[in-house]
Amino acid sequence: MKIITVKHIIDTCGNTDVIDLTGLVISELDKSYIKNGSVLIFVPGCTASVTTIEYEPGLKRDLPELLAKLIPEGRHYHHNKTWGDNNAHAHLRSSVFGTSLNVPFENGELLLGTWQQIVLIDFDERPRKRKVIIQLTGE
Amino acid sequence: MKIITVKHIIDTCGNTDVIDLTGLVISELDKSYIKNGSVLIFVPGCTASVTTIEYEPGLKRDLPELLAKLIPEGRHYHHNKTWGDNNAHAHLRSSVFGTSLNVPFENGELLLGTWQQIVLIDFDERPRKRKVIIQLTGE
Amino acid sequence: MKIITVKHIIDTCGNTDVIDLTGLVISELDKSYIKNGSVLIFVPGCTASVTTIEYEPGLKRDLPELLAKLIPEGRHYHHNKTWGDNNAHAHLRSSVFGTSLNVPFENGELLLGTWQQIVLIDFDERPRKRKVIIQLTGE
Repeated sequence: MKIITVKHIIDTCGNTDVIDLTGLVISELDKSYIKNGSVLIFVPGCTASVTTIEYEPGLKRDLPELLAKLIPEGRHYHHNKTWGDNNAHAHLRSSVFGTSLNVPFENGELLLGTWQQIVLIDFDERPRKRKVIIQLTGE
Repeated sequence: MKIITVKHIIDTCGNTDVIDLTGLVISELDKSYIKNGSVLIFVPGCTASVTTIEYEPGLKRDLPELLAKLIPEGRHYHHNKTWGDNNAHAHLRSSVFGTSLNVPFENGELLLGTWQQIVLIDFDERPRKRKVIIQLTGE
Repeated sequence: MKIITVKHIIDTCGNTDVIDLTGLVISELDKSYIKNGSVLIFVPGCTASVTTIEYEPGLKRDLPELLAKLIPEGRHYHHNKTWGDNNAHAHLRSSVFGTSLNVPFENGELLLGTWQQIVLIDFDERPRKRKVIIQLTGE
């Protein structure tokens, strides 16, 4: 069994920007020579998430529009009042979507669906440089 | 340390159908002779999720009724307009609920709560045959 | 590769009480002498979740206020009618937020963001004693 942990810095636009990480994860899996196991994708931070989605332009617009209704930016939040921030909505969205994802692989191939991509979502209200952890475990 | 990866095909009714996978996961754990570790349950696909819930008829009705309010089927979505689809709501629900779950086990027993079941939820708008990945890691 | 599984009992106030588990996880990591790998935090139970958040008083108030709007306690739920319970909202919240979280570590340090904490959220409508599983895997 081997464990390989790599870090990448990803430029985002913030504002519920959705970024496809699938190619990056496949590239790290190929370099690792690990054939069977799972990959943990984790985002250190309180205003971003990792999940899967079909990465296409329609859903990239639908997701922010949905969240503008459910967890809007402009509402009164105690977090913003306490800290002079404007990103309480981003904190709450991150907690709901979560910051860790595990994807199994076999014979060196991620077991994703045909249209399913691994994505980082940055909910913060400004562009960010985001660290993403990719940890491969297997044999 | 051993890693065992198995695939199952599950028939669903779609439309936020909730399917209990607990028996299947226990059966694979029993067959594996792995005693301590964790199991990753993953659904390849963009319109389904894996989570835990108390699997009982009341909540099986409450969950679709809740989601009909929060992420309704009939709203205008860019995804549906672009692709001529009618399942944008299913994509968005899948991203929120997530597609991976990890459950620890010890002495050959899943460490679930008494009423807690591992479930697949199929959000798509039609019946599907769903592949589910069960990956056991441990010793 | 080693796997260490520990259980802790946590007192909660229920009602979407947010409890910081980060110190507990760090303490178990320090005791384990495992340096590289990941920790699975899992809550057995149907009315609680594990996620990450910036643990500060503002967000501890914002989260219950948000959920009172999205998944309110007082609505008609089939679960409550069937079982004479009053916690269907807690079940539904738990399924959305999820019950498992994986955090990578390296050189004996959790790879969390600066303000990011690992938290248990208890959605039940009364104080509870909650079991939490911390499982470390690595070398």
